[in-house]
Amino acid sequence: MLAREKIRLYVDAALGEGKSIPLTPPQAHYLFGVMRLGPGARVALFDGRSGEWTAEVVAAGKKTGTLGCLGQSAAQLDPPDLWLLFAPIRKARTDFIVEKAAEMGAARILPVLTEYTNAERVNVDRLQAHAVEAAEQCGGTFVPPVDAPQKLSALIDNWPQDRRILFADEALAGGASAASPDFAGAGAEPGGERRGAPWAILIGPEGGFSKPERERLRAMPQARPVRLGPRILRADTAAVAALTLWQSTLGDW
Amino acid sequence: MLAREKIRLYVDAALGEGKSIPLTPPQAHYLFGVMRLGPGARVALFDGRSGEWTAEVVAAGKKTGTLGCLGQSAAQLDPPDLWLLFAPIRKARTDFIVEKAAEMGAARILPVLTEYTNAERVNVDRLQAHAVEAAEQCGGTFVPPVDAPQKLSALIDNWPQDRRILFADEALAGGASAASPDFAGAGAEPGGERRGAPWAILIGPEGGFSKPERERLRAMPQARPVRLGPRILRADTAAVAALTLWQSTLGDW
Repeated sequence: MLAREKIRLYVDAALGEGKSIPLTPPQAHYLFGVMRLGPGARVALFDGRSGEWTAEVVAAGKKTGTLGCLGQSAAQLDPPDLWLLFAPIRKARTDFIVEKAAEMGAARILPVLTEYTNAERVNVDRLQAHAVEAAEQCGGTFVPPVDAPQKLSALIDNWPQDRRILFADEALAGGASAASPDFAGAGAEPGGERRGAPWAILIGPEGGFSKPERERLRAMPQARPVRLGPRILRADTAAVAALTLWQSTLGDW
Repeated sequence: MLAREKIRLYVDAALGEGKSIPLTPPQAHYLFGVMRLGPGARVALFDGRSGEWTAEVVAAGKKTGTLGCLGQSAAQLDPPDLWLLFAPIRKARTDFIVEKAAEMGAARILPVLTEYTNAERVNVDRLQAHAVEAAEQCGGTFVPPVDAPQKLSALIDNWPQDRRILFADEALAGGASAASPDFAGAGAEPGGERRGAPWAILIGPEGGFSKPERERLRAMPQARPVRLGPRILRADTAAVAALTLWQSTLGDW
């Protein structure tokens, strides 16, 4: 394996020994205008499925450029089969949740609209770009796809039988800890501790789930409520905390 | 106990039944200018040590105001004895780390300067204001003090004998998991699982610790390196992840 380069780019084209990779105008601008690279300079590339490759600048233009794949520098690292569902909140915190989900190893990101979601328009392309950037900056080789927003009720109607769903229930925060379900309980569930099983984490909106939503979630055989301590956490904090607990208990940490 | 109000303010004055609480000009502007409250309206107050109190607007001016304490609405909830040490990074992420530390229950926040810290000037007052705002918005009754920045080397020189220190070691990320120390190991240490023991979490800068720093940390009998999964995490993500693992294993979650 070749040494890993610091400058990393996600590309759509499939990577492989000797392949020639064309750059998009923003990529050419970044490499040649911002980073001042010239022919012969090396960067790392990943396509989301072939690991990381070292590539050399072959041609550098103002808005164009070509890289040549030299050899692999890291194996592909796919995340566990974990979806992150979250109710979009204010722009900066939504961006943050997507960035963190990509960094921490979620396999798919699904914005959901709940009864109390402040349904600001969700720009899926921008969120996807954040996921790409997080993978580029954190040495990742996988980029989780970001779905178009959908209604929570519709998602629940068609929820896969075999996919467990962990939901951070605000009603549990600050309550007595004795009777509250906890994450360890969810993991200790027969079959729940099996690594590799399909899971999802659902983070509610700032106003919490509505009563009907909470009752529907609790009635799902796949659902497990989780308690994230005695303090009320913001949605973005709850997302990172739940990802951490899941990854360290059932995931690949 | 009285019902908890949604609008919450941190005040310096000690709270108690029948106490009269003067407002600062920004607090008066927020309550009367922004939130449009008038005499008789209720808000929640906390002073960081007396729990949460319901107070009533007694006098409302443009830049002044007085509240009257009616009764307690929540007991004081102090965090465990956990310090968060972190190397300040770019402004937005530094603000974020302080906000999350306050939200998740750290008792004290210490910015540290390491060899690779991009020692941008740290505005302690601004960071303290972020900690106050996080407590106000998340129903907290405690505000962790933010220290002035100090050098990591000096801190280590005077490190308390009985305070364990968990440090997120970037050198462990992406490595083989078998031989890597993990958090469970740190917790299982004799005496380490004792809840209530003094602990600290140390998050390094984006460039990681220097080799001498890492060696010094590893040689400390109080120090435990922790591995946060196979992906490289940004410093702010590592802070939230380490706080989550510590709180769920040794803290009050």
